[in-house]
Amino acid sequence: MPKLTSPSADFSEWYNEVVRQAELADYAPVRGCMIIRPYGYAIWELMQQALDRMFKDTGHENVYFPLLIPLSFLEKEAQHVEGFAPECAVVTHGGGKKLEEPLVVRPTSETIIWHTYRDWIQSYRDLPLLYNQWANVVRWELRTRLFLRTLEFLWQEGHTAHATAEEAMRETDRMLDVYRTFAEDWMALPVIPGLKTESERFAGAVATYSIEAMMGDRRALQAGTSHFLGQNFAKAFDVTFQDEAGGRQHVWATSWGVSTRLVGALVMAHGDEKGLRLPPKLAPYQVVIVPIYKSEDERARVNEASSRIARDLGGTIRVKLDDRDTVRPGFKFNEWELRGVPLRIEMGPRDLEKGQVVLARRDTGTKDFVPQAGLTDRVRSLLDDIQKTLHTQAKQFRDENTFTVDTWEEFAERTKGEGGSGFLVAHWDGTAETEARIKEETKATIRCIPFDKRQEAGRCVLTGRPSKQRVIFAKAY
Amino acid sequence: MPKLTSPSADFSEWYNEVVRQAELADYAPVRGCMIIRPYGYAIWELMQQALDRMFKDTGHENVYFPLLIPLSFLEKEAQHVEGFAPECAVVTHGGGKKLEEPLVVRPTSETIIWHTYRDWIQSYRDLPLLYNQWANVVRWELRTRLFLRTLEFLWQEGHTAHATAEEAMRETDRMLDVYRTFAEDWMALPVIPGLKTESERFAGAVATYSIEAMMGDRRALQAGTSHFLGQNFAKAFDVTFQDEAGGRQHVWATSWGVSTRLVGALVMAHGDEKGLRLPPKLAPYQVVIVPIYKSEDERARVNEASSRIARDLGGTIRVKLDDRDTVRPGFKFNEWELRGVPLRIEMGPRDLEKGQVVLARRDTGTKDFVPQAGLTDRVRSLLDDIQKTLHTQAKQFRDENTFTVDTWEEFAERTKGEGGSGFLVAHWDGTAETEARIKEETKATIRCIPFDKRQEAGRCVLTGRPSKQRVIFAKAY
Repeated sequence: MPKLTSPSADFSEWYNEVVRQAELADYAPVRGCMIIRPYGYAIWELMQQALDRMFKDTGHENVYFPLLIPLSFLEKEAQHVEGFAPECAVVTHGGGKKLEEPLVVRPTSETIIWHTYRDWIQSYRDLPLLYNQWANVVRWELRTRLFLRTLEFLWQEGHTAHATAEEAMRETDRMLDVYRTFAEDWMALPVIPGLKTESERFAGAVATYSIEAMMGDRRALQAGTSHFLGQNFAKAFDVTFQDEAGGRQHVWATSWGVSTRLVGALVMAHGDEKGLRLPPKLAPYQVVIVPIYKSEDERARVNEASSRIARDLGGTIRVKLDDRDTVRPGFKFNEWELRGVPLRIEMGPRDLEKGQVVLARRDTGTKDFVPQAGLTDRVRSLLDDIQKTLHTQAKQFRDENTFTVDTWEEFAERTKGEGGSGFLVAHWDGTAETEARIKEETKATIRCIPFDKRQEAGRCVLTGRPSKQRVIFAKAY
Repeated sequence: MPKLTSPSADFSEWYNEVVRQAELADYAPVRGCMIIRPYGYAIWELMQQALDRMFKDTGHENVYFPLLIPLSFLEKEAQHVEGFAPECAVVTHGGGKKLEEPLVVRPTSETIIWHTYRDWIQSYRDLPLLYNQWANVVRWELRTRLFLRTLEFLWQEGHTAHATAEEAMRETDRMLDVYRTFAEDWMALPVIPGLKTESERFAGAVATYSIEAMMGDRRALQAGTSHFLGQNFAKAFDVTFQDEAGGRQHVWATSWGVSTRLVGALVMAHGDEKGLRLPPKLAPYQVVIVPIYKSEDERARVNEASSRIARDLGGTIRVKLDDRDTVRPGFKFNEWELRGVPLRIEMGPRDLEKGQVVLARRDTGTKDFVPQAGLTDRVRSLLDDIQKTLHTQAKQFRDENTFTVDTWEEFAERTKGEGGSGFLVAHWDGTAETEARIKEETKATIRCIPFDKRQEAGRCVLTGRPSKQRVIFAKAY
């Protein structure tokens, strides 16, 4: 394996190398598209399972709407078409003939779904509709990067319909909270939930909320969004319901989504100079066992004991026994470290005699001799500890790189150069104009207006005009 | 709910009504596309889970390849492009610009996958590759029908690469057997595995195998296919490997797939005049509980007991408690019968007093009073029995409608009219010409050359020329 570039030397190059050498994904022959390889896809499957469970536990059901959407549907919601039409892949021919109306490959499914909800919703009794779909979408991005921004990506998109604005707003909050919980508890990724500014709002939404995470290069990454769509799509597609009093009202809507971008977030939030470090809950293999031997006789005995351990652990833990005879243990250590397996068990003839194994943690790099008796419990508790440690480390890193900034001098200083800026917690005068100027001058954008910040009077870091609350600026992916 | 058309009066209309009234799927605003509704999608999810487990247990891993494929890729395999190009949806514009090369929306992924395998395969040590993907595909069909034939459908496609022809052939067999097992054990659908004739072969395959099922109108449905691709794609995309002796050889390939068409097969194989009958293993709800009461006081008591039963069963069984107060029990009975729930539990005040419930089977229509004590075990064993009974009924129906045919008179008689013909087990002279003539005259096609038929000398049912084995003819979907 070629040696990895150091993340501190060139984070972007390091990221590409990790993604490709750990065999998470590869570039496809079509520009900007990616091939998700088995190891990367296995991470995505674990994410899907956890999220799908959380969606169902909050009352949602899965559906599937078509990939191809008439262009005219997009045009029904003015902001939506403005936001998405320029990014669309357009099907003009089908079955050897030119189509009467071009079809777009869905960039998101609000339009076709709200067109359909018109048939499904008549009365308040039909509400709410709490639907989600797992699907692929295509957006014609110019600058792409594996997982983070690709022409096609996999995601889930929730689309719900409600009788009242309050209920739709509660749904918007609830799903943002599902994403926050998933990021924190499964990805070991501390995130800041908050409101997006108008300029960063989803095309067609009344309000967009997001969770924002910090990557290892101190850039921000938007890790999930939840939109309150008001009655915009209901009005565009004329979706009304008869309320309890017998009147007719337009329906209230939300949509929310996370994507394969989260796999990239895992790499960038936890990776180090040796490669990936996967949180145990999302690791395709939580433990790798590497048998160590010299003679054929040792090999047989060590492999047998390793198989037994793999079987014992395998009931509740995802285990890989790496019994390849074509590469040496040192090679295996490097490879599984690169691929981020949380725990390695080494087992040689001596360990066998002593009834012990070596346990090596990927997160801290520590190695311990531990008895084979009670190994499953020990491994399980170590995996819990690694899950927590990765979160603690990521949170500490984020906190160390979060700065309260009150002067333009400091703001400019912290955002200069090509690297990440960390999170800059600063006052902003609330205008799109100032936001745009700051972006132009520093490349930093407002990531969100965080929920958990108290109201605090102050002055805009650029214009000095009055402000009521600090917002979070950062250079972002 | 509107009354269902009888399946014996108009099977096709009955099918459409069941699919739409049971809320499995709906037509989409784009011609030939469908919207899979929550209940239909839940069936598909159960199918996916079972199949995915079987794929993984046979050593396969999931991957994801891009939706969009350069048109030139299709053109590299002569038969493949001939078969698929006329059915393609073509993207000509992206990001507001005309593309230099048109991209097709994948109709199947052999080409882009084999293009990639070239990079992934160098040596015999890299083989086999045992990959599968869950994906959507688009084929520009002219005559469409919900689930059975739609422009876009969901499926899985396995694509494997092997060092030898023998190994690839074993894989082809193995996956056909996985499909056979899934059809029989999960769908309660008896199927006949066999070889397709040349004219029904997958475009680019050396041999195509399928499992063939009989639907309730005595038409055949191809329920899954497994292809031995030989070295066709390896040669088209120049994929070679270094063998153990140091020479270079082209790689051997298979591909195999099943699709959302299987949901349609469930409807058509087991449905009756009341609607769907779902095999318990694939039923989103295995049991529905309908509380029965008149007074408010009864309602409280019955609902409480029903909730308790739902909780008790819910640990291991998929239960729906239908406690809607807006519709009457009779309406609920009809609705859940239409939707094919295998078992219904009715519970009224009298049952409560007597410590019993009413258990109604969807498959046989029988109703029994059974004690609440031990209900979970009773329900579990009844579900097993329903699963078996549906299989037995389907097999009996198929056997009753399978005919050994030795004369052209009988063949013509059995295939005349618009309805299904059943399976006609007849001799065929082995020529594509005869096959085409029979199809033209009777609309019956050769479904497969079954594995389990003994070699038997005979004379072709049409031409009288010698034949070594009987094949299965049927009118098919």
